[in-house]
Amino acid sequence: MIPDCFFDPGSIALVGAAHTDIKLGGIVLKNLLRFKGKVYPVNPKYNELMGLKAYASVEALPDSVDLAVIMRPAPEVPDILHQFKNKTTCAIVVSSGFAEVGETGLQDEVKRVGRETGIRIVGPNCMGVCNPSKRLDTFFLTYERMKRPRKGNVAVVSQSGALLICLFEVIKAWNIGLSKAIGYGNAVDIDVSDIFEYLSQDRATDVVISYIESVGDGRRFVESAKELSGKKSLVILKSGKGLSGQVAAYSHTGRLAGKYEVFHSVLQQFGIPEARDLDELVDATKALSYQMPVKGNRVCILTNGGGAGVLAADECMRQGLEIARLPEDKIKRLREMFPHFYGINNPLDLTAQVQDKEYLQVLEELHDDYDGFLIIAMAGVQGVSERLADLIKDFQVRTPKPLVFYTTLNTVSMRLKSLLEKARIPVFPSPERAIRGLRALLRQ
Amino acid sequence: MIPDCFFDPGSIALVGAAHTDIKLGGIVLKNLLRFKGKVYPVNPKYNELMGLKAYASVEALPDSVDLAVIMRPAPEVPDILHQFKNKTTCAIVVSSGFAEVGETGLQDEVKRVGRETGIRIVGPNCMGVCNPSKRLDTFFLTYERMKRPRKGNVAVVSQSGALLICLFEVIKAWNIGLSKAIGYGNAVDIDVSDIFEYLSQDRATDVVISYIESVGDGRRFVESAKELSGKKSLVILKSGKGLSGQVAAYSHTGRLAGKYEVFHSVLQQFGIPEARDLDELVDATKALSYQMPVKGNRVCILTNGGGAGVLAADECMRQGLEIARLPEDKIKRLREMFPHFYGINNPLDLTAQVQDKEYLQVLEELHDDYDGFLIIAMAGVQGVSERLADLIKDFQVRTPKPLVFYTTLNTVSMRLKSLLEKARIPVFPSPERAIRGLRALLRQ
Repeated sequence: MIPDCFFDPGSIALVGAAHTDIKLGGIVLKNLLRFKGKVYPVNPKYNELMGLKAYASVEALPDSVDLAVIMRPAPEVPDILHQFKNKTTCAIVVSSGFAEVGETGLQDEVKRVGRETGIRIVGPNCMGVCNPSKRLDTFFLTYERMKRPRKGNVAVVSQSGALLICLFEVIKAWNIGLSKAIGYGNAVDIDVSDIFEYLSQDRATDVVISYIESVGDGRRFVESAKELSGKKSLVILKSGKGLSGQVAAYSHTGRLAGKYEVFHSVLQQFGIPEARDLDELVDATKALSYQMPVKGNRVCILTNGGGAGVLAADECMRQGLEIARLPEDKIKRLREMFPHFYGINNPLDLTAQVQDKEYLQVLEELHDDYDGFLIIAMAGVQGVSERLADLIKDFQVRTPKPLVFYTTLNTVSMRLKSLLEKARIPVFPSPERAIRGLRALLRQ
Repeated sequence: MIPDCFFDPGSIALVGAAHTDIKLGGIVLKNLLRFKGKVYPVNPKYNELMGLKAYASVEALPDSVDLAVIMRPAPEVPDILHQFKNKTTCAIVVSSGFAEVGETGLQDEVKRVGRETGIRIVGPNCMGVCNPSKRLDTFFLTYERMKRPRKGNVAVVSQSGALLICLFEVIKAWNIGLSKAIGYGNAVDIDVSDIFEYLSQDRATDVVISYIESVGDGRRFVESAKELSGKKSLVILKSGKGLSGQVAAYSHTGRLAGKYEVFHSVLQQFGIPEARDLDELVDATKALSYQMPVKGNRVCILTNGGGAGVLAADECMRQGLEIARLPEDKIKRLREMFPHFYGINNPLDLTAQVQDKEYLQVLEELHDDYDGFLIIAMAGVQGVSERLADLIKDFQVRTPKPLVFYTTLNTVSMRLKSLLEKARIPVFPSPERAIRGLRALLRQ
């Protein structure tokens, strides 16, 4: 398990701190000024950096620290770690220039020094950690360039810093909140399994999303993923699936990606959800951070646009979800309720002549017959209004079942989307993506 | 072939015109006020509708018309068509209530009357046509509710009205222009083949995207699709792939979806690109409307974020694109040009320390070695600025090869995106979607 001091240190030493945010060491220092704890910048050229007393060396530090963040060139890293012996137990090595560029010897040395000194290491070649509740992050990106997500219930575990950023941007855009994030890079010591073990006990986290290029100890990984997915919602995106991707992954984090087919079948065996690509990861995250998953796979689709319903039904098939037929008595009742040109099937086609309240009427008739619902409301027609958000919100409160939404983007639907998402009903940008979101909420 | 008068009529009679846009017949009339041609509203209850002289019946029309638009309840439609004998040769039947709700007898009658009177029919149960260059559309959606896309080079052919709307919304959001659009519904007469034949000769159209639920005459469809894809870029999204989808498609347009596997293998045999879902259709459309496709499948990925490059490489594999190795001499040269921690491979990892101009340096070294390029620029880092748009624009002008872009969404990248897209370089919202866009530009 990754030690507490990575996500919740009381004090941090930053080796390679700089005086300006033109330099990476200056960006990290500036960001650490927000941190609710002590920060010790280390740089022999300055007595003071950004208003903090600076220290000439690790030896000069007045005290031991909970966490060391190291941003000096790769060849200096082993020495710096040595200097931290008995001064810290946790270090993040941000520096790159190790196995990912062929410097495996240097990387092995970092690993060995870590073992000798008893210092646990995240990295090298990594972004480090982010914990919004402590205002802590070690990312070398300015707040001007990249705003951080708000506090929430989703943890991000990524081997790649780039993916961490991609995910942060999407998390913000999709109005999702963050509990913790970590970019662990080449993983000479702390690996995804250590992080999963920690997060399975983290009370702030309900959902864990993880981008993985390679796994060190396969057996431990499976154990930790199983444990985590028993306690929280876990979705994994594994890259390096083909040969090109594997070569790319190796030159990125210096670790072999392994045979993807093996990875995939192991996850499947243990029922651990896997995303096919970045969009799928994000769709699942949105659904899981908004709603609670349930057991079941019977889906009902309500639509006012036939074609969009057909595409959603196709996606259900691909996702192994069942578009179960409406019960006979319900068909009879709904036929009596609605005009003859409505399509009383599943998908249920309310046509372009739908009125808001008819969605609710159908939901109330069918809520016991299905495990999850997709509502498609093309807001181009006159009968769809913002009132639909209230109707569905009330229904959802009375009948908490997975319910996702798709609407096209125009002025009415932008407001509708905003109201729905305030009520924790996730709105997706295509019928198929809505079904992929719903899929994450329906466990087998 | 669909007759000219559908897309380019001089005069239109609207049967079922209404006085208010609370009614569908009023919305269409209001929209037709923009049309550059004569409009004859037909409604026995009014002498005047929205400032136009209204006619009590089809018989009362002063003249023959190029196009009749019929919006009366289904049972009245055969009679109305009879009345149009010798008064028009083209009719759009917007009304629903035919085979899609089991009224196959009524639909057969419409078909028979069309044959007897020599009137060609689009529909029933359809949205009809849109031609921005004539300010013509027959869609029953107000401009307030759904703005129309600007004029451009993409034609949309959709059996479903809902998909037409979905596609319109995305086309606008993605800054794509429209040449023509048609929603042809139950297709008793005019079918997708007739429309493809027309569009293959339409000078305003470079790209055709088509949403299809069912195909009437399979052989004719294949012939027309082959001809069209020889002259224009064609991308097809076929729905009703599984049993649920097929049932849904039937109850939507009243036609059997057919065995999807057959459809799929025929398209593949003739090299006609097929989209897997709505996102793929839209991604291909964006790429093809921005750039010219070429023959080839060798892709080079330039990135400043390793993980995003790996995901893109994985998607290349899935799409059958080759991430060919860099030539040895170029590896040598690039190693000399850049810091040792840059990953000189394919994907080429310029790391978070990249400077704008380095993307250009790489492109200039490698432009002859690849058929298409993906540039990934995570704009969270300091070295990526708006200047990158100019550099890439200049390169693209000198070296016109397919080139697509992925960037995360923050303030810098929003401006970058806008500049790039003005220069006809499409920017996509994920690495995988960028590759799917590039795939559409690379022909086998």
